[in-house]
Amino acid sequence: MLASVALSQSAPFWPQPAAFTSVAGQRELANVGPFFFMHGGRSSPFLSQAFARYTSLAFPHTASAPTSACTAGLSSLPKIDRLTFDVLDLAEGVPALTSDESYTLSINATAQTVQAKSVFGALRALETFAQLVAFDFDCGCYTLPYAQIRIDDAPRFAHRGLMIDTARHYEPLASIRTIIDSLPYAKINVLHWHIVDTQSFPFVSTSSPKLSTAAYALSQRYTHGDVASIVDYARLRGVRVMVEFDMPGHAQSWCTGYPEMCPSSSCLTPLNVASNATFDRIEKLLAEFTGGSTGLGLTPDDFIHLGGDEVNTDCWATTPSVAAWLKARSMSPDDGYAYFVKRTAAIAIAQGRRPVQWSEVYDHFKTKLPKEVIVHVWKAVTNVTEVVANGYDVLRNVGYDATSWYLDNLNVNWEAVYNNEPCEGVPDALCHKVLGGHGEMWGETVDTSDVQQTVWPRLAAIAEKLWSPRAKTVDSSAAAGRIAAFRCLLNERGIAAAPVNNEGARESPHGPGSCYDQRRRLTSP
Amino acid sequence: MLASVALSQSAPFWPQPAAFTSVAGQRELANVGPFFFMHGGRSSPFLSQAFARYTSLAFPHTASAPTSACTAGLSSLPKIDRLTFDVLDLAEGVPALTSDESYTLSINATAQTVQAKSVFGALRALETFAQLVAFDFDCGCYTLPYAQIRIDDAPRFAHRGLMIDTARHYEPLASIRTIIDSLPYAKINVLHWHIVDTQSFPFVSTSSPKLSTAAYALSQRYTHGDVASIVDYARLRGVRVMVEFDMPGHAQSWCTGYPEMCPSSSCLTPLNVASNATFDRIEKLLAEFTGGSTGLGLTPDDFIHLGGDEVNTDCWATTPSVAAWLKARSMSPDDGYAYFVKRTAAIAIAQGRRPVQWSEVYDHFKTKLPKEVIVHVWKAVTNVTEVVANGYDVLRNVGYDATSWYLDNLNVNWEAVYNNEPCEGVPDALCHKVLGGHGEMWGETVDTSDVQQTVWPRLAAIAEKLWSPRAKTVDSSAAAGRIAAFRCLLNERGIAAAPVNNEGARESPHGPGSCYDQRRRLTSP
Repeated sequence: MLASVALSQSAPFWPQPAAFTSVAGQRELANVGPFFFMHGGRSSPFLSQAFARYTSLAFPHTASAPTSACTAGLSSLPKIDRLTFDVLDLAEGVPALTSDESYTLSINATAQTVQAKSVFGALRALETFAQLVAFDFDCGCYTLPYAQIRIDDAPRFAHRGLMIDTARHYEPLASIRTIIDSLPYAKINVLHWHIVDTQSFPFVSTSSPKLSTAAYALSQRYTHGDVASIVDYARLRGVRVMVEFDMPGHAQSWCTGYPEMCPSSSCLTPLNVASNATFDRIEKLLAEFTGGSTGLGLTPDDFIHLGGDEVNTDCWATTPSVAAWLKARSMSPDDGYAYFVKRTAAIAIAQGRRPVQWSEVYDHFKTKLPKEVIVHVWKAVTNVTEVVANGYDVLRNVGYDATSWYLDNLNVNWEAVYNNEPCEGVPDALCHKVLGGHGEMWGETVDTSDVQQTVWPRLAAIAEKLWSPRAKTVDSSAAAGRIAAFRCLLNERGIAAAPVNNEGARESPHGPGSCYDQRRRLTSP
Repeated sequence: MLASVALSQSAPFWPQPAAFTSVAGQRELANVGPFFFMHGGRSSPFLSQAFARYTSLAFPHTASAPTSACTAGLSSLPKIDRLTFDVLDLAEGVPALTSDESYTLSINATAQTVQAKSVFGALRALETFAQLVAFDFDCGCYTLPYAQIRIDDAPRFAHRGLMIDTARHYEPLASIRTIIDSLPYAKINVLHWHIVDTQSFPFVSTSSPKLSTAAYALSQRYTHGDVASIVDYARLRGVRVMVEFDMPGHAQSWCTGYPEMCPSSSCLTPLNVASNATFDRIEKLLAEFTGGSTGLGLTPDDFIHLGGDEVNTDCWATTPSVAAWLKARSMSPDDGYAYFVKRTAAIAIAQGRRPVQWSEVYDHFKTKLPKEVIVHVWKAVTNVTEVVANGYDVLRNVGYDATSWYLDNLNVNWEAVYNNEPCEGVPDALCHKVLGGHGEMWGETVDTSDVQQTVWPRLAAIAEKLWSPRAKTVDSSAAAGRIAAFRCLLNERGIAAAPVNNEGARESPHGPGSCYDQRRRLTSP
């Protein structure tokens, strides 16, 4: 039926679906009562909650009687009164790298349906549909800007993430939940939780309760129950939570409660490689998240991030006990670094998880790493072409030109972010080894007061690069209108996304005006 | 009982209650299931919703088993398992200037009760109680930091507001709701909605539907139902909504849909004083909010704001038809200004409302104004001493030194705001004529992306000046620790309040650190 009439293949979605066709025209949504239904009366508590959320998101206005300005002749438009979801596997499960997020959305004379293989595909379809709905203020009703639609969609990359850093500033649970709320709006599906670092240790460990004496304040901590509640909140939105314990560097806070985990009181970093007690605490801490042999931990995700970046081993060389330990094993400090990251990776693997480690771990040790390791490339010098050729999976946030997805780089605008191709330099046949990437929201100058506008809208540019087909994301100028509209959508949903055309991230708007006309600042403030 | 033991009269509340006494010690809250109850099993749908909100706010963490760091001996603490509300008048009603917000909160050996005359007093007590609750992470339970408490509280000023401006930038409904959420946290009870201005007219009027052709975008508008939903959302939080239509200046947007409302196409402002059609449209528009003779309009509040500021009458003098109309009545342009503001005030009074008008209206016309007019003093030159002596009620946001509560003045920090005394220059016997004041959040550089951190924490300083006894708010330095903690509380609740010690409003935090240690920037960024 679609083929017999003029088709359009452009639409205002963010991110763009893999394939979209439509027939020009308009539909009125007869929005009386519930709009989203399960096919065949099947039941899904997971999707019932999603339907409730998207009823609010798609239909934000209180409909009212038509005014005399209602001239669209809406009464003669074809109407639809529901969208029916036909989902093959209704098991709630847990979102994973292997989750099937594909879906087909069809609206035509005979069908108003979503077909998906999993509940996660159904979530993505809900977002796509919500982005189509418009409210006609003059006529007091909701409309679709097409007579017919067919969308066949699936992500380009399976792993599309945002990292948050709750160590440089504590992020309260309410703040994390709002961030999670916003992620599916751009089809982001991973929250990488950099939960501790040198500056603070807000997690209350049951195996090592003194670790959280390095929290910023007694009140600025997370219980097991808090983490579990965040993980479940994310799960219901199709968002995985990948926790990170960065080691052996970026870990001085560990030594506040357990001084023996550091080389000495005068030389605190990296963690003490020479003590089995170090690894015992790490093993027990990771088991709180992985469940250890039971698998029933706080984070069901297949991945656990072990950090491994920015390690300076001087303290190991100059601390007599550590130096003696290395010498007894004929190990250099760099060998000690290898020993540390491989031993922690082995702990994670033994607990049934794939370890994720930053660029330097590969750069130092290359094929000595177990193949389960996922290399998180944040340094332009890391040879991604070689990493994937050597058989490692990759998360990537930086190009060879050093343009990165570090959202704390406030002078990197959305276009630069958008022009970063995740498979740059990677042969097509190996592009599947790039699992995806993240926007990385380091927290030195970010807390509840500014995290949303520092993340958004630039994370949207990352999201489209990771979701949409490569051929559809080569030109940032073609995306400019859509991303401005998406930023307005985020604002409509209460997310404090900054204007898209700011010269620096999180700048305020420069003068009165429409959300859809986000001017660059022409003169100094 | 309290008198027999050592008393403390300081506590970390924001704003400070009128009277607080306590007995040192600690209580454990046995937080299993519901905590807030009505006295005698009475029923209040209004308070049931408030209890649900404050259960989330007071108990944000998921309790967990005690760790080995739990050394407080909590098991021996006296416990309380409920707070019981004894409210004299359970009528839901509508918050008004005359609402009784007083309450008594008692926690001792025999009582754990709130006594209030109205549901609005009960709301304020809930907030006060929530600010007392702490979570003990090591022991996995909630505590009160006192063994006994008695608070007798009531506001100093009845009218404590925030103005938002949805004309310089459209604020989506979700954004307005989050702002309303935050107001009762500081016991702010009025949202002054500056809904239209010269730049845009986002309200879809049923009497004059073409007015909203001056919205920034078709999607950036408010229906009747939207306004009603905001008013009800605010009502449930004890927040009045006072809408403003600023006239005859600040009104060029009115002429987009109805050009005859302006003097001419080349001279657009102020609105055309010479045409009855101008006043007919205004009368019908105001009636949409007041209900006209029925009283059943969108905003049940007793007040309606008619603006009246910054009027330049040159266009009236130079537009022949208007000049002729004035001349025929032997009126100067300034007489025309008086005619306009008095006629619109008369319309509001005839519709059962008290008109609020800005400084200039009094400065020009003084005792010619009807006594129902409330003078909204924003100019330091306005002689407040004279205004109240002449029998007018006042809303005040500026001192005689010109330090104002204009939140768009980004270089005015919270201390300056706090040092602004609402009854400066007013004899004590007439201080009751100052009804209160507002933080004024003009929207030129404010939209969803930055409104929360521009408003907060400075609105908190205003809130305490308006709620707490005058003698308790004379010294900003004594408030510094409490306002920093209140900013952290706002963040805990997901409100993007900026650090308190920023040199400029809405700056980001300057480096890693605790929320409780909000350093000034010592060097340039």
